[in-house]
Amino acid sequence: MRIASRPLLLWISTASTASSFQLTRAASAQAPKVAPLLAATGIAPHRYRQSNLCKSSLRMASTDSSASETSLRVALCQFRVTADKDENHNTASAFISQAAEKGARLAVLPEIWNSPYATAAFPEYAEVMPNVGDSSADSSPSSQLLIDAAKKHGIWLVGGSIPERALEDGEEKIYNTCLVLNPEGTIVAKHRKVHLFDIDVPGGITFFESETLSAGQTISHFSTPFGEIGVGICYDIRFAELAMIMRQKHNCVILIYPGAFNMTTGPAHWELLQRARAVDNQCFVMTVSHARTPAPENAKESKYPHYTAWGHSSVVSPWGDIVATIDENEGVVIADIDLSRVDEVRRGIPIGDQKRSDLYQLTDSSSEDR
Amino acid sequence: MRIASRPLLLWISTASTASSFQLTRAASAQAPKVAPLLAATGIAPHRYRQSNLCKSSLRMASTDSSASETSLRVALCQFRVTADKDENHNTASAFISQAAEKGARLAVLPEIWNSPYATAAFPEYAEVMPNVGDSSADSSPSSQLLIDAAKKHGIWLVGGSIPERALEDGEEKIYNTCLVLNPEGTIVAKHRKVHLFDIDVPGGITFFESETLSAGQTISHFSTPFGEIGVGICYDIRFAELAMIMRQKHNCVILIYPGAFNMTTGPAHWELLQRARAVDNQCFVMTVSHARTPAPENAKESKYPHYTAWGHSSVVSPWGDIVATIDENEGVVIADIDLSRVDEVRRGIPIGDQKRSDLYQLTDSSSEDR
Repeated sequence: MRIASRPLLLWISTASTASSFQLTRAASAQAPKVAPLLAATGIAPHRYRQSNLCKSSLRMASTDSSASETSLRVALCQFRVTADKDENHNTASAFISQAAEKGARLAVLPEIWNSPYATAAFPEYAEVMPNVGDSSADSSPSSQLLIDAAKKHGIWLVGGSIPERALEDGEEKIYNTCLVLNPEGTIVAKHRKVHLFDIDVPGGITFFESETLSAGQTISHFSTPFGEIGVGICYDIRFAELAMIMRQKHNCVILIYPGAFNMTTGPAHWELLQRARAVDNQCFVMTVSHARTPAPENAKESKYPHYTAWGHSSVVSPWGDIVATIDENEGVVIADIDLSRVDEVRRGIPIGDQKRSDLYQLTDSSSEDR
Repeated sequence: MRIASRPLLLWISTASTASSFQLTRAASAQAPKVAPLLAATGIAPHRYRQSNLCKSSLRMASTDSSASETSLRVALCQFRVTADKDENHNTASAFISQAAEKGARLAVLPEIWNSPYATAAFPEYAEVMPNVGDSSADSSPSSQLLIDAAKKHGIWLVGGSIPERALEDGEEKIYNTCLVLNPEGTIVAKHRKVHLFDIDVPGGITFFESETLSAGQTISHFSTPFGEIGVGICYDIRFAELAMIMRQKHNCVILIYPGAFNMTTGPAHWELLQRARAVDNQCFVMTVSHARTPAPENAKESKYPHYTAWGHSSVVSPWGDIVATIDENEGVVIADIDLSRVDEVRRGIPIGDQKRSDLYQLTDSSSEDR
């Protein structure tokens, strides 16, 4: 089934407040009601693949021949995040609904969407999260929301991230964790941010996630009818090796990074890093940020420091073009992507086959997916 | 010594014809005569370092503490290349002179500057080239020109590339080879393009260097008073691993790529790839292209197919900013770069120290520099 033919299509609807939004009449009229059709398309049963412990160097895999569909409508849900978890839940649910109404078969949420993006807040908002293979989350309302939404709308859901509380060897740890749900509401990947955001740019931004967070140990990816999809979180995008392993070992055709770049590195590097990962790996790259919120007039009244997100959630093609994006405001970015473009670009400039493995090797020694 | 303080400075002078040029009066008046001062600055004796055969994974080195100077004026010599080797020699000499007159302490030439960029032309224009440590080139007029120019002007010279004829085990091979000269005219690095430009973009460009060229076996870099500098040629820039080894193993602070991107990949990827290498490795990146030449009116009269270069030689900062560039025309791009910016960026966003070597490793098994 082809939902839409090329060229790529972009709709953005914006909301006027942080906690509620409405489709504009024009956007609503434009959006074909494709979602109900999906149940009849015979989407292949969900599969998830685990990374084997592998210390050998990578060989570039050819494009996954098991991918059966080349046309995919995606939705990037860029919304404002507040200190009110219930309000964040309502916002996330509404944005996922909007994505489904617009016919998206895969929706993406931003990093840390149920909590303020502040290290001190993470323990307070953290939840004990389910694992790959689970389809319920009694101890995690935020995870349950994602499960319910994926199932209700029958969509693939890359659930941004939330702070995860985990007890390991008697020690409590907090991770920055992304769940991925298949259209049946089953968790098919769980990515804990592996590169913690610890930076100190004089005159710019200082932030140390490691004040309260622990780093993950896995390189995460999942299988879909559209091909293999890799997942990283925000600062992970700066580490080219991670994306290269997703492409070279796991044969990903899409890389997705929920994120929350800031007002220093956002304008400088957000777009550049996405395009770099796309061109070097000849993958589609998708990013989703928070929408920007104004700093409170009286910052002292806020329990946690305010974080100003850059916004600009985007979809980038394997050729490095920005095919869909948005400014700093709330909105659902819709793009129809043609996954046959991945093969086309890889055939034209076959860097995958031209790596000089006699001169250099990239190896993956990460543990299994969780 | 600081030649000039930040912010970075850009002068471009353009020429009106392929084979001759004049500094504009304004540019000439602007350019301080810094070159004569250089002899008195006590430039450290040249050093060149060889890559050891190394199969272990890389550890990120800190910035080279042996670098003694942080201010460097560089010149990118973007000129037109013709089918007349003597004319190309005259052009190259004139551009290097102009670079020196403008006070550059390091000048860069484009890829394949003594020959048309056509696979069939490479054997005809190829020369038997000298090796690292040599300071004369009896059998290579193009190499001798570079040696003489470096010595005459007392500058570091990254000599673009020329086709190299080499006899190996009784077999004749042609390489796409870059010589690097120190200010005494001694060859301190010799890079043979390791990734041959074999691409076929439907409706765009088709080119197969491997029709006549062989690929090099080394990852090339050299030491200067300004820090370690890595060298690749054109298509090499698409392979992130090469740049990452230059940075992580050899501690390069500048990466230089003579190149000749085309009218398909040039507008799409030339700038993006430079900025990606700069930001991922927190290095200065410099590229030098041919100036663009119009296709001949009667292509059948040309011995070799015409190649239309994108131009746009550039200097990119470790933060990913384009600090100096030019359009498709001839010109010498001058930039004053402050190498302390490398440390500053690496301290602010310390991705070098944050690599997850427990999850992935990049290893270098290349042979020694030549």
